[in-house]
Amino acid sequence: MSATPKPVMRLIEEFSRLPGIGPKTASRLTYFLLRAPVEQVQSLAEAIRQVKERTVLCSVCFNIAESSPCAICSSPDRDQSQICVVEEPLDVLAIERTRQYQGLYHVLHGAISPVEGIGPEELKIRELVQRVRNGVVREVLLATNPNLEGEATAMYIARQILPLGIRVTRLARGLPIGGDLEYADEVTLAQALEGRREM
Amino acid sequence: MSATPKPVMRLIEEFSRLPGIGPKTASRLTYFLLRAPVEQVQSLAEAIRQVKERTVLCSVCFNIAESSPCAICSSPDRDQSQICVVEEPLDVLAIERTRQYQGLYHVLHGAISPVEGIGPEELKIRELVQRVRNGVVREVLLATNPNLEGEATAMYIARQILPLGIRVTRLARGLPIGGDLEYADEVTLAQALEGRREM
Repeated sequence: MSATPKPVMRLIEEFSRLPGIGPKTASRLTYFLLRAPVEQVQSLAEAIRQVKERTVLCSVCFNIAESSPCAICSSPDRDQSQICVVEEPLDVLAIERTRQYQGLYHVLHGAISPVEGIGPEELKIRELVQRVRNGVVREVLLATNPNLEGEATAMYIARQILPLGIRVTRLARGLPIGGDLEYADEVTLAQALEGRREM
Repeated sequence: MSATPKPVMRLIEEFSRLPGIGPKTASRLTYFLLRAPVEQVQSLAEAIRQVKERTVLCSVCFNIAESSPCAICSSPDRDQSQICVVEEPLDVLAIERTRQYQGLYHVLHGAISPVEGIGPEELKIRELVQRVRNGVVREVLLATNPNLEGEATAMYIARQILPLGIRVTRLARGLPIGGDLEYADEVTLAQALEGRREM
Protein backbone atom coordinates (compact mmCIF):
# COMPACT_ATOMS: atom_id res chain seq x y z
CA MET A 1 0.00 0.00 0.00
CA SER A 2 1.45 3.33 -1.04
CA ALA A 3 0.49 6.76 0.25
CA THR A 4 0.88 8.14 -3.27
CA PRO A 5 -2.00 7.76 -5.75
CA LYS A 6 -0.93 6.18 -9.07
CA PRO A 7 -1.74 9.26 -11.22
CA VAL A 8 0.44 11.32 -8.89
CA MET A 9 3.33 8.83 -9.05
CA ARG A 10 3.01 8.69 -12.82
CA LEU A 11 3.31 12.47 -13.20
CA ILE A 12 6.26 12.61 -10.80
CA GLU A 13 7.96 9.97 -12.97
CA GLU A 14 7.20 11.87 -16.18
CA PHE A 15 8.53 15.13 -14.77
CA SER A 16 11.66 13.32 -13.53
CA ARG A 17 12.48 12.35 -17.13
CA LEU A 18 12.95 16.02 -18.05
CA PRO A 19 16.49 17.42 -17.97
CA GLY A 20 17.53 19.07 -14.71
CA ILE A 21 14.42 17.86 -12.87
CA GLY A 22 15.15 15.45 -10.03
CA PRO A 23 12.59 13.49 -7.98
CA LYS A 24 12.18 16.31 -5.43
CA THR A 25 11.45 19.00 -8.03
CA ALA A 26 9.18 16.56 -9.85
CA SER A 27 7.16 16.02 -6.63
CA ARG A 28 6.98 19.75 -5.99
CA LEU A 29 5.72 20.46 -9.52
CA THR A 30 3.17 17.64 -9.30
CA TYR A 31 1.74 18.80 -5.97
CA PHE A 32 1.70 22.37 -7.27
CA LEU A 33 -0.46 21.24 -10.20
CA LEU A 34 -2.74 19.29 -7.86
CA ARG A 35 -3.54 22.57 -6.13
CA ALA A 36 -3.54 24.78 -9.25
CA PRO A 37 -6.77 25.80 -11.02
CA VAL A 38 -7.94 23.07 -13.40
CA GLU A 39 -7.72 25.56 -16.32
CA GLN A 40 -3.99 26.07 -15.77
CA VAL A 41 -3.38 22.34 -15.59
CA GLN A 42 -5.34 21.62 -18.78
CA SER A 43 -3.66 24.54 -20.50
CA LEU A 44 -0.21 23.16 -19.70
CA ALA A 45 -1.19 19.68 -20.89
CA GLU A 46 -2.57 21.14 -24.12
CA ALA A 47 0.52 23.29 -24.74
CA ILE A 48 2.72 20.20 -24.35
CA ARG A 49 0.50 18.17 -26.67
CA GLN A 50 0.57 20.86 -29.34
CA VAL A 51 4.21 21.85 -29.23
CA LYS A 52 5.23 18.97 -31.48
CA GLU A 53 2.02 18.68 -33.46
CA ARG A 54 1.98 22.31 -34.54
CA THR A 55 5.66 22.80 -35.33
CA VAL A 56 7.89 21.58 -38.17
CA LEU A 57 11.55 21.76 -39.04
CA CYS A 58 12.17 24.42 -41.69
CA SER A 59 13.34 22.54 -44.81
CA VAL A 60 15.90 25.27 -45.54
CA CYS A 61 17.54 26.16 -42.21
CA PHE A 62 16.23 23.28 -40.01
CA ASN A 63 15.10 25.63 -37.28
CA ILE A 64 11.87 24.75 -35.45
CA ALA A 65 9.07 26.72 -37.08
CA GLU A 66 5.33 26.94 -37.63
CA SER A 67 5.71 26.55 -41.40
CA SER A 68 8.38 25.59 -43.90
CA PRO A 69 10.25 27.59 -45.09
CA CYS A 70 10.28 29.45 -41.78
CA ALA A 71 9.52 33.11 -41.19
CA ILE A 72 13.20 34.05 -41.24
CA CYS A 73 14.10 32.08 -44.38
CA SER A 74 11.13 33.54 -46.27
CA SER A 75 11.52 37.13 -45.05
CA PRO A 76 12.52 39.72 -47.68
CA ASP A 77 14.08 41.78 -44.86
CA ARG A 78 16.83 39.28 -44.09
CA ASP A 79 20.22 39.35 -45.76
CA GLN A 80 20.34 36.21 -47.93
CA SER A 81 24.11 36.46 -48.33
CA GLN A 82 24.90 35.57 -44.69
CA ILE A 83 24.30 32.25 -42.97
CA CYS A 84 24.88 31.91 -39.24
CA VAL A 85 25.51 28.28 -38.28
CA VAL A 86 24.35 27.22 -34.80
CA GLU A 87 24.06 23.94 -32.95
CA GLU A 88 20.51 24.27 -31.56
CA PRO A 89 17.26 26.20 -32.15
CA LEU A 90 17.75 27.94 -28.77
CA ASP A 91 20.97 29.45 -30.16
CA VAL A 92 18.91 31.17 -32.88
CA LEU A 93 16.81 32.83 -30.17
CA ALA A 94 19.93 33.97 -28.31
CA ILE A 95 21.35 35.62 -31.44
CA GLU A 96 17.98 37.13 -32.44
CA ARG A 97 17.75 38.74 -29.00
CA THR A 98 20.90 40.76 -29.75
CA ARG A 99 19.12 42.40 -32.74
CA GLN A 100 22.59 42.65 -34.30
CA TYR A 101 22.22 40.03 -37.00
CA GLN A 102 20.10 40.35 -40.13
CA GLY A 103 21.18 37.27 -42.09
CA LEU A 104 19.83 33.72 -42.26
CA TYR A 105 20.51 30.74 -40.01
CA HIS A 106 21.39 27.08 -40.30
CA VAL A 107 20.68 24.77 -37.35
CA LEU A 108 22.98 21.74 -37.18
CA HIS A 109 21.01 19.95 -34.42
CA GLY A 110 24.08 19.06 -32.43
CA ALA A 111 27.88 19.10 -32.64
CA ILE A 112 30.47 16.53 -33.68
CA SER A 113 31.21 14.38 -30.63
CA PRO A 114 33.16 11.13 -31.04
CA VAL A 115 32.46 10.35 -27.36
CA GLU A 116 28.69 10.39 -27.94
CA GLY A 117 29.07 8.78 -31.37
CA ILE A 118 27.88 11.87 -33.24
CA GLY A 119 29.68 12.26 -36.56
CA PRO A 120 29.26 14.94 -39.26
CA GLU A 121 26.67 12.83 -41.07
CA GLU A 122 24.34 12.98 -38.01
CA LEU A 123 24.25 16.78 -38.34
CA LYS A 124 22.77 19.04 -41.04
CA ILE A 125 26.24 19.75 -42.49
CA ARG A 126 25.72 18.28 -45.95
CA GLU A 127 22.55 20.38 -46.24
CA LEU A 128 24.57 23.48 -45.26
CA VAL A 129 27.21 22.85 -47.93
CA GLN A 130 24.44 22.33 -50.46
CA ARG A 131 22.80 25.62 -49.45
CA VAL A 132 26.11 27.45 -49.81
CA ARG A 133 26.77 25.89 -53.22
CA ASN A 134 23.32 26.74 -54.58
CA GLY A 135 22.89 30.15 -53.13
CA VAL A 136 23.93 33.72 -53.05
CA VAL A 137 25.82 33.19 -49.82
CA ARG A 138 28.97 35.24 -49.31
CA GLU A 139 29.65 34.64 -45.62
CA VAL A 140 29.18 31.68 -43.29
CA LEU A 141 29.39 32.77 -39.64
CA LEU A 142 30.19 29.81 -37.40
CA ALA A 143 28.41 30.25 -34.05
CA THR A 144 28.89 26.80 -32.58
CA ASN A 145 29.56 26.59 -28.85
CA PRO A 146 32.99 27.63 -27.55
CA ASN A 147 33.85 24.14 -26.34
CA LEU A 148 35.68 21.08 -27.73
CA GLU A 149 32.72 19.74 -29.72
CA GLY A 150 31.74 23.16 -31.04
CA GLU A 151 35.31 23.92 -32.12
CA ALA A 152 35.69 20.55 -33.84
CA THR A 153 32.40 21.12 -35.66
CA ALA A 154 33.45 24.62 -36.73
CA MET A 155 36.79 23.32 -38.05
CA TYR A 156 35.10 20.54 -39.98
CA ILE A 157 32.60 22.93 -41.58
CA ALA A 158 35.28 25.52 -42.38
CA ARG A 159 37.24 22.84 -44.28
CA GLN A 160 34.15 22.12 -46.39
CA ILE A 161 33.20 25.74 -47.12
CA LEU A 162 36.56 27.53 -47.57
CA PRO A 163 37.41 25.64 -50.83
CA LEU A 164 34.18 27.08 -52.31
CA GLY A 165 35.73 30.55 -52.04
CA ILE A 166 33.24 31.70 -49.42
CA ARG A 167 34.17 33.82 -46.41
CA VAL A 168 34.02 31.80 -43.15
CA THR A 169 34.02 33.68 -39.83
CA ARG A 170 33.40 32.72 -36.24
CA LEU A 171 32.17 34.55 -33.13
CA ALA A 172 34.86 36.43 -31.21
CA ARG A 173 36.33 34.90 -28.05
CA GLY A 174 37.19 37.07 -25.08
CA LEU A 175 36.17 38.25 -21.67
CA PRO A 176 32.41 38.23 -21.05
CA ILE A 177 30.93 41.68 -20.41
CA GLY A 178 30.38 42.24 -16.69
CA GLY A 179 32.94 39.56 -15.91
CA ASP A 180 35.93 40.01 -13.64
CA LEU A 181 39.41 39.54 -15.10
CA GLU A 182 40.59 38.04 -11.83
CA TYR A 183 38.07 35.22 -12.14
CA ALA A 184 38.41 34.57 -15.87
CA ASP A 185 39.61 31.06 -16.68
CA GLU A 186 43.02 30.86 -18.37
CA VAL A 187 41.71 29.68 -21.74
CA THR A 188 39.29 32.63 -22.02
CA LEU A 189 42.01 35.02 -20.92
CA ALA A 190 44.47 33.54 -23.43
CA GLN A 191 41.88 33.98 -26.19
CA ALA A 192 41.18 37.54 -25.05
CA LEU A 193 44.91 38.33 -25.29
CA GLU A 194 45.29 36.69 -28.66
CA GLY A 195 42.24 38.53 -30.00
CA ARG A 196 43.20 41.94 -28.57
CA ARG A 197 42.12 44.96 -30.61
CA GLU A 198 43.45 48.51 -31.11
CA MET A 199 41.65 51.19 -29.13
CA MET B 1 8.31 38.60 -36.99
CA SER B 2 9.51 36.39 -34.18
CA ALA B 3 12.00 33.56 -34.46
CA THR B 4 9.91 31.55 -31.99
CA PRO B 5 6.85 29.63 -33.23
CA LYS B 6 3.67 30.42 -31.26
CA PRO B 7 3.20 26.87 -29.87
CA VAL B 8 6.78 27.02 -28.58
CA MET B 9 6.26 30.43 -26.96
CA ARG B 10 3.03 29.21 -25.41
CA LEU B 11 4.67 26.18 -23.80
CA ILE B 12 7.57 28.31 -22.52
CA GLU B 13 4.99 30.60 -20.91
CA GLU B 14 3.08 27.69 -19.36
CA PHE B 15 6.27 26.16 -17.94
CA SER B 16 7.28 29.58 -16.56
CA ARG B 17 4.13 29.64 -14.45
CA LEU B 18 5.33 26.62 -12.46
CA PRO B 19 7.14 27.29 -9.16
CA GLY B 20 10.93 27.48 -9.39
CA ILE B 21 10.91 27.48 -13.20
CA GLY B 22 12.25 30.67 -14.75
CA PRO B 23 12.17 31.63 -18.44
CA LYS B 24 15.53 29.94 -19.14
CA THR B 25 14.55 26.61 -17.61
CA ALA B 26 11.17 26.87 -19.37
CA SER B 27 12.93 27.30 -22.73
CA ARG B 28 15.26 24.41 -22.01
CA LEU B 29 12.36 22.09 -21.10
CA THR B 30 10.40 23.17 -24.17
CA TYR B 31 13.26 22.56 -26.59
CA PHE B 32 13.96 19.25 -24.88
CA LEU B 33 10.37 18.16 -25.54
CA LEU B 34 10.64 19.33 -29.16
CA ARG B 35 13.46 16.81 -29.60
CA ALA B 36 12.02 14.06 -27.41
CA PRO B 37 10.13 11.06 -28.86
CA VAL B 38 6.48 11.94 -29.51
CA GLU B 39 5.43 9.12 -27.13
CA GLN B 40 7.23 10.74 -24.21
CA VAL B 41 5.68 14.12 -24.96
CA GLN B 42 2.15 12.71 -25.23
CA SER B 43 2.70 10.64 -22.11
CA LEU B 44 3.67 13.74 -20.11
CA ALA B 45 0.68 15.70 -21.42
CA GLU B 46 -1.62 12.80 -20.52
CA ALA B 47 -0.14 12.42 -17.03
CA ILE B 48 -0.73 16.13 -16.38
CA ARG B 49 -4.29 15.93 -17.72
CA GLN B 50 -5.10 12.94 -15.50
CA VAL B 51 -3.43 14.02 -12.27
CA LYS B 52 -6.40 16.13 -11.24
CA GLU B 53 -9.11 14.12 -13.00
CA ARG B 54 -8.16 10.83 -11.37
CA THR B 55 -7.48 11.98 -7.83
CA VAL B 56 -9.73 13.16 -5.02
CA LEU B 57 -9.27 14.53 -1.53
CA CYS B 58 -9.88 11.86 1.09
CA SER B 59 -12.99 12.94 2.99
CA VAL B 60 -11.44 11.78 6.27
CA CYS B 61 -7.81 12.96 6.24
CA PHE B 62 -7.89 15.32 3.21
CA ASN B 63 -4.82 13.75 1.67
CA ILE B 64 -4.75 13.46 -2.12
CA ALA B 65 -5.91 9.95 -2.99
CA GLU B 66 -7.35 7.73 -5.70
CA SER B 67 -10.47 7.05 -3.68
CA SER B 68 -12.19 8.32 -0.56
CA PRO B 69 -11.60 7.25 2.17
CA CYS B 70 -7.95 6.85 1.12
CA ALA B 71 -5.84 3.70 1.34
CA ILE B 72 -4.29 4.76 4.65
CA CYS B 73 -7.59 5.76 6.33
CA SER B 74 -9.25 2.50 5.29
CA SER B 75 -6.32 0.21 6.10
CA PRO B 76 -6.85 -2.23 8.98
CA ASP B 77 -3.06 -2.21 9.51
CA ARG B 78 -2.89 1.43 10.61
CA ASP B 79 -3.21 2.51 14.22
CA GLN B 80 -6.53 4.39 14.42
CA SER B 81 -5.60 5.95 17.75
CA GLN B 82 -2.87 8.24 16.34
CA ILE B 83 -3.34 11.17 13.99
CA CYS B 84 -0.32 12.94 12.54
CA VAL B 85 -1.21 16.48 11.44
CA VAL B 86 0.74 17.89 8.48
CA GLU B 87 0.48 20.98 6.32
CA GLU B 88 0.72 19.41 2.86
CA PRO B 89 0.26 16.05 1.09
CA LEU B 90 4.02 15.97 0.38
CA ASP B 91 4.62 15.91 4.13
CA VAL B 92 2.68 12.62 4.33
CA LEU B 93 5.09 11.12 1.78
CA ALA B 94 8.10 12.35 3.77
CA ILE B 95 6.82 10.71 6.96
CA GLU B 96 5.78 7.51 5.16
CA ARG B 97 9.32 7.21 3.79
CA THR B 98 10.66 6.90 7.35
CA ARG B 99 8.55 3.73 7.86
CA GLN B 100 8.46 4.73 11.54
CA TYR B 101 4.82 5.82 11.75
CA GLN B 102 1.82 3.48 11.67
CA GLY B 103 -1.01 5.86 12.56
CA LEU B 104 -3.34 7.99 10.44
CA TYR B 105 -2.85 11.47 8.98
CA HIS B 106 -4.67 14.76 8.72
CA VAL B 107 -3.66 17.22 5.98
CA LEU B 108 -4.39 20.87 6.84
CA HIS B 109 -3.63 22.20 3.33
CA GLY B 110 -1.58 25.11 4.60
CA ALA B 111 -0.60 26.87 7.79
CA ILE B 112 -1.99 29.88 9.62
CA SER B 113 -0.39 32.97 8.09
CA PRO B 114 -1.81 36.42 8.87
CA VAL B 115 0.57 37.89 6.24
CA GLU B 116 -0.99 35.78 3.50
CA GLY B 117 -4.46 36.17 4.96
CA ILE B 118 -4.76 32.48 5.87
CA GLY B 119 -6.73 31.99 9.08
CA PRO B 120 -7.68 28.75 10.89
CA GLU B 121 -10.99 28.58 9.01
CA GLU B 122 -9.10 28.29 5.67
CA LEU B 123 -7.47 25.09 6.93
CA LYS B 124 -8.95 21.68 7.75
CA ILE B 125 -8.74 22.35 11.50
CA ARG B 126 -12.44 22.16 12.32
CA GLU B 127 -12.54 18.81 10.54
CA LEU B 128 -9.58 17.63 12.64
CA VAL B 129 -11.27 18.58 15.91
CA GLN B 130 -14.41 16.80 14.72
CA ARG B 131 -12.39 13.67 13.91
CA VAL B 132 -10.76 13.72 17.32
CA ARG B 133 -14.13 14.19 19.06
CA ASN B 134 -15.83 11.35 17.20
CA GLY B 135 -13.06 8.86 17.17
CA VAL B 136 -10.86 6.53 19.07
CA VAL B 137 -7.95 8.96 18.87
CA ARG B 138 -5.58 9.05 21.81
CA GLU B 139 -2.68 11.06 20.38
CA VAL B 140 -2.45 13.95 17.96
CA LEU B 141 1.11 14.35 16.66
CA LEU B 142 1.66 17.86 15.28
CA ALA B 143 4.08 17.70 12.36
CA THR B 144 3.66 21.21 10.96
CA ASN B 145 6.78 22.91 9.60
CA PRO B 146 9.38 24.19 12.11
CA ASN B 147 8.82 27.84 11.13
CA LEU B 148 6.68 30.74 12.37
CA GLU B 149 3.52 29.71 10.51
CA GLY B 150 3.90 26.04 11.40
CA GLU B 151 4.47 26.85 15.08
CA ALA B 152 1.47 29.20 15.21
CA THR B 153 -0.68 26.52 13.59
CA ALA B 154 0.54 23.87 16.04
CA MET B 155 -0.18 26.17 19.01
CA TYR B 156 -3.67 26.92 17.72
CA ILE B 157 -4.48 23.25 17.21
CA ALA B 158 -3.03 22.24 20.59
CA ARG B 159 -5.33 24.76 22.28
CA GLN B 160 -8.34 23.10 20.59
CA ILE B 161 -7.36 19.50 21.28
CA LEU B 162 -5.83 19.57 24.78
CA PRO B 163 -9.16 20.45 26.49
CA LEU B 164 -10.59 17.22 25.03
CA GLY B 165 -8.16 15.26 27.22
CA ILE B 166 -6.20 13.96 24.25
CA ARG B 167 -2.41 13.70 24.18
CA VAL B 168 -0.84 16.29 21.85
CA THR B 169 2.80 15.85 20.81
CA ARG B 170 5.04 17.49 18.25
CA LEU B 171 8.11 16.42 16.29
CA ALA B 172 11.42 16.87 18.11
CA ARG B 173 13.60 19.88 17.30
CA GLY B 174 17.37 19.54 17.22
CA LEU B 175 20.42 19.20 15.05
CA PRO B 176 19.80 17.54 11.70
CA ILE B 177 21.65 14.25 11.25
CA GLY B 178 24.78 14.72 9.15
CA GLY B 179 24.82 18.41 10.05
CA ASP B 180 27.75 20.27 11.51
CA LEU B 181 27.33 21.91 14.92
CA GLU B 182 29.56 24.77 13.81
CA TYR B 183 27.13 25.70 11.06
CA ALA B 184 23.87 25.19 12.96
CA ASP B 185 21.80 28.36 13.28
CA GLU B 186 21.33 29.64 16.82
CA VAL B 187 17.61 28.83 17.01
CA THR B 188 18.20 25.19 16.08
CA LEU B 189 21.09 24.96 18.51
CA ALA B 190 19.03 26.54 21.29
CA GLN B 191 16.27 24.00 20.66
CA ALA B 192 18.81 21.16 20.62
CA LEU B 193 20.10 22.30 24.03
CA GLU B 194 16.64 22.69 25.45
CA GLY B 195 15.60 19.24 24.19
CA ARG B 196 18.77 17.45 25.33
CA ARG B 197 18.39 13.83 26.37
CA GLU B 198 20.18 11.50 28.80
CA MET B 199 22.62 9.09 27.18
